[in-house]
Amino acid sequence: MSKEKKYVKDITSRDENFAQWYTDVVREARLCDYSAVKGCLIYMPNGYAIWENIQADLDRRFKETGVENVSLPLLIPESLLEKESDHVEGFAPEVAWVTHGGLERLEERLCVRPTSEVLFCDHWQKDVKSYRDLPKLYNQWNSVLRWEKTTRPFLRSREFLWQEGHTIHATAKEAEERTQMMLKVYYDCVTEALAIPLICGRKTESEKFAGAEATYTIEAMMHDGKALQSGTSHFFGDGFAKAFDVKFLNKNNELEYVNQTSWGLSTRVIGAIIMVHGDDSGLVLPPRIAPTQTMIIPIASHKNEVIKEAEKLLATLKEKGIRAKADFSDKTPGWKFSEQEVLGIPTRIEIGPKEIENKEVVVVRRDTREKIKVAMKDIETELPKILETIQKDMYNRAKEFLDSHIDTAVTMDEMVKKFKEKRGFIKAMWCGDKECEGEIKYATGGASSRCIPFEEEHLSDHCIFCGKKAKHMVYFGKSY
Amino acid sequence: MSKEKKYVKDITSRDENFAQWYTDVVREARLCDYSAVKGCLIYMPNGYAIWENIQADLDRRFKETGVENVSLPLLIPESLLEKESDHVEGFAPEVAWVTHGGLERLEERLCVRPTSEVLFCDHWQKDVKSYRDLPKLYNQWNSVLRWEKTTRPFLRSREFLWQEGHTIHATAKEAEERTQMMLKVYYDCVTEALAIPLICGRKTESEKFAGAEATYTIEAMMHDGKALQSGTSHFFGDGFAKAFDVKFLNKNNELEYVNQTSWGLSTRVIGAIIMVHGDDSGLVLPPRIAPTQTMIIPIASHKNEVIKEAEKLLATLKEKGIRAKADFSDKTPGWKFSEQEVLGIPTRIEIGPKEIENKEVVVVRRDTREKIKVAMKDIETELPKILETIQKDMYNRAKEFLDSHIDTAVTMDEMVKKFKEKRGFIKAMWCGDKECEGEIKYATGGASSRCIPFEEEHLSDHCIFCGKKAKHMVYFGKSY
Repeated sequence: MSKEKKYVKDITSRDENFAQWYTDVVREARLCDYSAVKGCLIYMPNGYAIWENIQADLDRRFKETGVENVSLPLLIPESLLEKESDHVEGFAPEVAWVTHGGLERLEERLCVRPTSEVLFCDHWQKDVKSYRDLPKLYNQWNSVLRWEKTTRPFLRSREFLWQEGHTIHATAKEAEERTQMMLKVYYDCVTEALAIPLICGRKTESEKFAGAEATYTIEAMMHDGKALQSGTSHFFGDGFAKAFDVKFLNKNNELEYVNQTSWGLSTRVIGAIIMVHGDDSGLVLPPRIAPTQTMIIPIASHKNEVIKEAEKLLATLKEKGIRAKADFSDKTPGWKFSEQEVLGIPTRIEIGPKEIENKEVVVVRRDTREKIKVAMKDIETELPKILETIQKDMYNRAKEFLDSHIDTAVTMDEMVKKFKEKRGFIKAMWCGDKECEGEIKYATGGASSRCIPFEEEHLSDHCIFCGKKAKHMVYFGKSY
Repeated sequence: MSKEKKYVKDITSRDENFAQWYTDVVREARLCDYSAVKGCLIYMPNGYAIWENIQADLDRRFKETGVENVSLPLLIPESLLEKESDHVEGFAPEVAWVTHGGLERLEERLCVRPTSEVLFCDHWQKDVKSYRDLPKLYNQWNSVLRWEKTTRPFLRSREFLWQEGHTIHATAKEAEERTQMMLKVYYDCVTEALAIPLICGRKTESEKFAGAEATYTIEAMMHDGKALQSGTSHFFGDGFAKAFDVKFLNKNNELEYVNQTSWGLSTRVIGAIIMVHGDDSGLVLPPRIAPTQTMIIPIASHKNEVIKEAEKLLATLKEKGIRAKADFSDKTPGWKFSEQEVLGIPTRIEIGPKEIENKEVVVVRRDTREKIKVAMKDIETELPKILETIQKDMYNRAKEFLDSHIDTAVTMDEMVKKFKEKRGFIKAMWCGDKECEGEIKYATGGASSRCIPFEEEHLSDHCIFCGKKAKHMVYFGKSY
């Protein structure tokens, strides 16, 4: 057991009990707390600051593609939710209903939004008149409510924070392009900022969003080999437009229905960060979205000179735009090391009398625990490089893990055996039939189709379950 | 009628019918739309972008004082709301109740948060143990719901966007200081970024927040002379702490109750921006929070050279960090001028063949309509100066309006007469009695006490209503 480890409190070993390890890390890193209402989370400063950084990254990417932010109401009248039949079937069983306002019973009950497609359609029906009004490229950052039975912090909660993008277009082609463009935006954000490698593709019919013609997904693999659906982008065609009568006059002065998309990414990705990068000492945050990128820890902090140098260092790093903090509390250095590790702060800088004498500091990487001596005068140029190296290494390690945990199967026996022996995803051929998908899930103890990748491989001619002609190659995996 | 005016659509004159003018501006500037639920607004891109800029300014100021962002749930169990008696009395009549989750009736009904004091207390009761855990300086950006009977865009709606800050401290003194510190933050943000002059001070007993020991307020004066309460900061003492049992071990190892504050500023301030700065052509936005600071309008835009120069200009300004746009649509320049004016974009830049020949552009100020010729090579340094001048001038004009619409009165006859003859606030002496406050409101047809300023003047020895010994000087005014 390393010197650092002994300060870590109550974190179960990741390989011993992954579920307990996850709960322990969420608690010890003070990411969130439970509220008085089951499944409704309190995002504490450490957890919310991660979300703020993800928001900033994603929001910038959205706006670069022309998206504008808006804010639509929390409440949806029942009659509005019911207008699109697939959609209401998908969501009605899991919404919360407001029945009283103030002291009065409402004439019509209102649901707390589980998602806002119908609100956008209702607005556009009034607002859009001509092809000149198109496209509308809207997004909102908010929370939605789905009355789930079983809940877990970040992964599945009744209320969760997310963004929901909604767009309408003059043509199906343009809407379809936007659907894939936004999937690409998610892909870039999650791989580049969150250092999480992904597989992506199209959902099968039975896994797609209620009311969508096509759903595209990015899927990440957690350390236990399970999939986490990390963002989805939906193409609706003109289904909602017809249900809500959203029409525009085209250039030939003819009325046409608009074509629509929506796309969402939620605080689930914080769960992904934990389960892809975390270790037995706690959280490991990718530098680009870490609220604090380096923690300066003075050694022998009773000495005035040490404090003075640490303060100078802090000012220098902040000036340089690095999110740096210093811990001047009266805890022992060992305790501070352990805290920095639990919180997943990507680096710590140790500075004491010896370092000051040698005009250097020791930078310790959170991900590898490597100790790097850096001349004091170089720290402001060296630390950003170290942070970028950590970011890349974290991605590469996770990519290696992902690649080495994807296997193939051509028979059900093979698939069942492989799912039993090894965690991860399995690629297999499929006939396109919903029943086969269900049978595969049953036989494997829960592996569902994750997606049909954009570039399919040809593994065999036959569906792995029924043996009929295969239509697609599918990634199968157990999932959160 | 000026040339520009003829393009303006359907905006009632501000002095003819202020209420209708307001509604017209909100609609024509495309700030918001009504939703299917009364009093729940759709914030469209133009409206929401203003809020985003206010958020960015205020959030930066909060964080500079050590505040951290968090996110607490939307739903509050009825039993939790009821724990603090003044608070529940104030809010219970105007909350919306969730009674069903999914297909089941809930055992206890949940209200949609009207404000989150009780949620914070419930969390802190579990989370805070020692003086080392204090202070907690939390804030959240969210929406809350209050079941109002009459609603108006931005000014009074059932759901509204705001931030709510909540802090706890070891001592009453520290909490009281934080209460006033956050009022100062509001004051700085609203005067500096929104160019709105303010009066501020303490609310009387009958006007303070449900459950607070003291409420401080910033009050702005609209163009019709009415007050708009634009932000409030509350000191709770240990009232909530006692109701929710939020205690900590102090340095002497004794259990003490925490002292608490909360403070909020909402999208109401967008209403204030409209009603302080707007004119008969529409919105006038202060440059610092204007989503677009300048609109480049090409004259004779069928000419290639004009487009090329306009594009170059746009790139230059964006590069310089100015929020610039260019309108290359096929509308006439006059139409584009009118649109820029309705939207309140602080400047437009006219560029045509004549300007290109003279190597200059014409900058037109939205607030004064002044036309300023600027050499093309100087635009990137001159425009920021013009924008800053507009910002200052807007503040100064509004300050002059405020100052010239504050009067004093020492008798009720004088007060009633002055409120009839002139819009604005009236300063008067008051005995501190709730009944006198009510009688003054009745006699003046609705003028309520806005605040007791931090520096009171001595206007007379007697309460303006009852003639008893005066305790305070109060600002009275009709309000939104």
